[in-house]
Amino acid sequence: MSTQAPHLSATQERSLRDIFPGDALLLTPEQTLVFATDAGRRMGTPLAVVRPTTEAQVVELLRLAQAERLPVYARGRASNQVGACVPDRPGIVVSLLHMNRILDIADDDFVAEVEPGVVTSDLQRAVEARGLFYPPDPASIDISTIGGNVATCAGGMRALKYGVTREYVLGLTAVLPGGRVLHTGGRCHKNVVGLDLTRLFVGSEGTLGIVTRIALKLLPLPQATATLLAGFASMEAAMHGVRRIFRAGILPVALEFLSPEVLDCVARRQTPPWPDSVRGALLIRLDGSRESLPLEVRRMHDALHTSDGTSGDAPGDATGNEPPVWSAHGVGRDEEEPLWAMRRGISPSAYLVRPNKIGEDIAVPRGRLLDALTGIRAIAQAHDLPILTYGHVGDGNIHVNIMYDGADPSETTRADAATVEVMRLVRSMDGTLSGEHGVGMAKKEFLHLQLSPLETELMRQVKHAFDPLGIMNPDKAY
Amino acid sequence: MSTQAPHLSATQERSLRDIFPGDALLLTPEQTLVFATDAGRRMGTPLAVVRPTTEAQVVELLRLAQAERLPVYARGRASNQVGACVPDRPGIVVSLLHMNRILDIADDDFVAEVEPGVVTSDLQRAVEARGLFYPPDPASIDISTIGGNVATCAGGMRALKYGVTREYVLGLTAVLPGGRVLHTGGRCHKNVVGLDLTRLFVGSEGTLGIVTRIALKLLPLPQATATLLAGFASMEAAMHGVRRIFRAGILPVALEFLSPEVLDCVARRQTPPWPDSVRGALLIRLDGSRESLPLEVRRMHDALHTSDGTSGDAPGDATGNEPPVWSAHGVGRDEEEPLWAMRRGISPSAYLVRPNKIGEDIAVPRGRLLDALTGIRAIAQAHDLPILTYGHVGDGNIHVNIMYDGADPSETTRADAATVEVMRLVRSMDGTLSGEHGVGMAKKEFLHLQLSPLETELMRQVKHAFDPLGIMNPDKAY
Repeated sequence: MSTQAPHLSATQERSLRDIFPGDALLLTPEQTLVFATDAGRRMGTPLAVVRPTTEAQVVELLRLAQAERLPVYARGRASNQVGACVPDRPGIVVSLLHMNRILDIADDDFVAEVEPGVVTSDLQRAVEARGLFYPPDPASIDISTIGGNVATCAGGMRALKYGVTREYVLGLTAVLPGGRVLHTGGRCHKNVVGLDLTRLFVGSEGTLGIVTRIALKLLPLPQATATLLAGFASMEAAMHGVRRIFRAGILPVALEFLSPEVLDCVARRQTPPWPDSVRGALLIRLDGSRESLPLEVRRMHDALHTSDGTSGDAPGDATGNEPPVWSAHGVGRDEEEPLWAMRRGISPSAYLVRPNKIGEDIAVPRGRLLDALTGIRAIAQAHDLPILTYGHVGDGNIHVNIMYDGADPSETTRADAATVEVMRLVRSMDGTLSGEHGVGMAKKEFLHLQLSPLETELMRQVKHAFDPLGIMNPDKAY
Repeated sequence: MSTQAPHLSATQERSLRDIFPGDALLLTPEQTLVFATDAGRRMGTPLAVVRPTTEAQVVELLRLAQAERLPVYARGRASNQVGACVPDRPGIVVSLLHMNRILDIADDDFVAEVEPGVVTSDLQRAVEARGLFYPPDPASIDISTIGGNVATCAGGMRALKYGVTREYVLGLTAVLPGGRVLHTGGRCHKNVVGLDLTRLFVGSEGTLGIVTRIALKLLPLPQATATLLAGFASMEAAMHGVRRIFRAGILPVALEFLSPEVLDCVARRQTPPWPDSVRGALLIRLDGSRESLPLEVRRMHDALHTSDGTSGDAPGDATGNEPPVWSAHGVGRDEEEPLWAMRRGISPSAYLVRPNKIGEDIAVPRGRLLDALTGIRAIAQAHDLPILTYGHVGDGNIHVNIMYDGADPSETTRADAATVEVMRLVRSMDGTLSGEHGVGMAKKEFLHLQLSPLETELMRQVKHAFDPLGIMNPDKAY
């Protein structure tokens, strides 16, 4: 296919204008610039931006794009961190934000059907008002869209108990290159007819087609939630706290870790509630019925305060079996909110440490968490850079923020070197390059550390079945 | 490819003998007959049965099979109901029962790695002894294997709260035709690198490759369980009971429905505990901590005994809002067991009604359950045949047993006609032909009711990437 197409031909432009009247088509650099990037800040080259409101327009677009061999880049709110939305080859950007209707919330089916541009928290509020629950809650929940969540298989804090987006997608409609309309799955909670094309789309990063309609599984809304913040004397002690919780047979909704460096960071923006002796923390959410939740909160306290009975000669065990040095808990949204506001403040606080960030979201087998955190700390020391670690330790998923000053060439070089070392460390532990963000452009250079040539070859052949000319988000993800 | 190969050539036989010494290769009809069928009782034609103990043997086999264009049929215990294991074209049957090692149970990773031939309940006992939990529990749990569960995306009663096999497969090793060894995923609980080849294998019914190793996610074992049996005055009232449970915000572990016909059936084998006024029942399992479970049992009783406050002019509403006419509950394995033994007795009891059965496992959107059950009852009446309905109504998944006497040509014809009508009814409600069993051979004739030509074309192209010559379980599933 053509890789050089710095502008649309007059015929192409006219064809697009026929499909997308008025401001549904954007062509000038002033209009398209904002669609050239995503939250990962890489820049691409939109030849045009189109904003469909109907599936029929998407069909026409993908007919045209196929005929003209034009690369196509679908996007929602572009909160993607890894450049998955970026038109790195000149092509057509498809903003799905005008396809943002909640089409159906079926109380008795426990199903919602939505267009891809629905903002995740808007859906959540709509279903919660009816006593229903859509669990996936990526940190970007107030800006990201369901379509984007499907494209990345978004996770979030509640994934520990409730799973990721994959677990909630029952069926979808997708338009394929050439304008073919594919319906997969349906509204049934169980369905095992044929190969699972539905879940193949989940996490495919826009490389197979454009999803125009999504059927989502809903659950009954839990009656009550509670949040605990437990502060430990060290990172090691906090990790042993994680083990104690699971050994007690508890599966929390969320189990977030805050490293000492992150606690220091938070303390720069607000007076922290915890005493100075706290050098590692766990932020834990539980849910349940109004009657049983107080018992579960007590059980969690008991689990954290009891030694897990293990012994060993590994360094840190002696420390690790120490209970929390401090804890607080809140029951109900009002009491919980300050604790989660603190958690949300981590990402902005990070920029108080350094103006630039390389944000990774690696995951390791859960039992290797302490090894991974210790190894990352050693990398930080070796490169004399602050590396902030926090995140969904219940899933073994750690956000690794490598902070540096982009104006300082030495720090920039060291940050890049540290990134490579983190990736190698993770892979040495059977970990994954990404637990949530995906590959996009940012992680393609590291893919060879994780995927075998056979895997990538198969992925490309599978893509070929959907997108034989390779116009859907080309060269991304795999 | 060759479709006529009534016996192996001398060279093929010699090659197989080289790979599979001694009784790892079975050739005589007396030896291979038992491998010619599965629980669906269709018969095929094994040219040979091989019983690998190592992945290396599977690699050699699939090299040979590819070179010789020999169809390959993998199987575990063959509890499959739809002929998915049957060598309907002459080919090589691969029994994976000798690859049955639990390779690893990692307490802190919450991961088990197993070979495909491990029996599901053996794995469950092994992990439960260590305070861990593998939720998928197909009814065949004591005979079916993890490999078979993966091939069919097995569900079971606990799927309502805990999901199906797909949700627990983190990674796998599969040997592809030609002997290529594919590793997908890994041991991380979250992983979004590349297309999801792992879940593509789940439910693929042996059409892509032979899975030789599976990494499974485990959960902490819940401390306690309880079971309730609630008896209602009618099927309609029982279905309204389902609605009441969900409206109360309760997500039970299991929620099984027993139709009046099934209750009668059970009563033929044992003196039922329920009074005659019970004409529909729900069997419900809850789990939780020792402290909170009694509260949850009470909450379930409250939900069932309270009107859901809805009103309407639909027939059955007036009846439907009636509370159970009888209920019983047991806490802990010993007290629960008689209730589940009764549930397990349904399938054998069915043969007291008629000697032959067509067993379907359709699913509908949950809100259409009563419509589906009513429609199936009308089909039974129209064809004057007993049709037993029961199963996982929490998921909208109903087992439909169409009972008939195979020695009676009229009943046989009516049973076939009723099957077609059930399938059409289900599809008219956006339901699925199979919630658990899969397609295999049995449902291929109905596939056009559910899959579009585009879907089947894409599935076949995806298969082509893995199996270009079409030797893996050819012509099955899609």
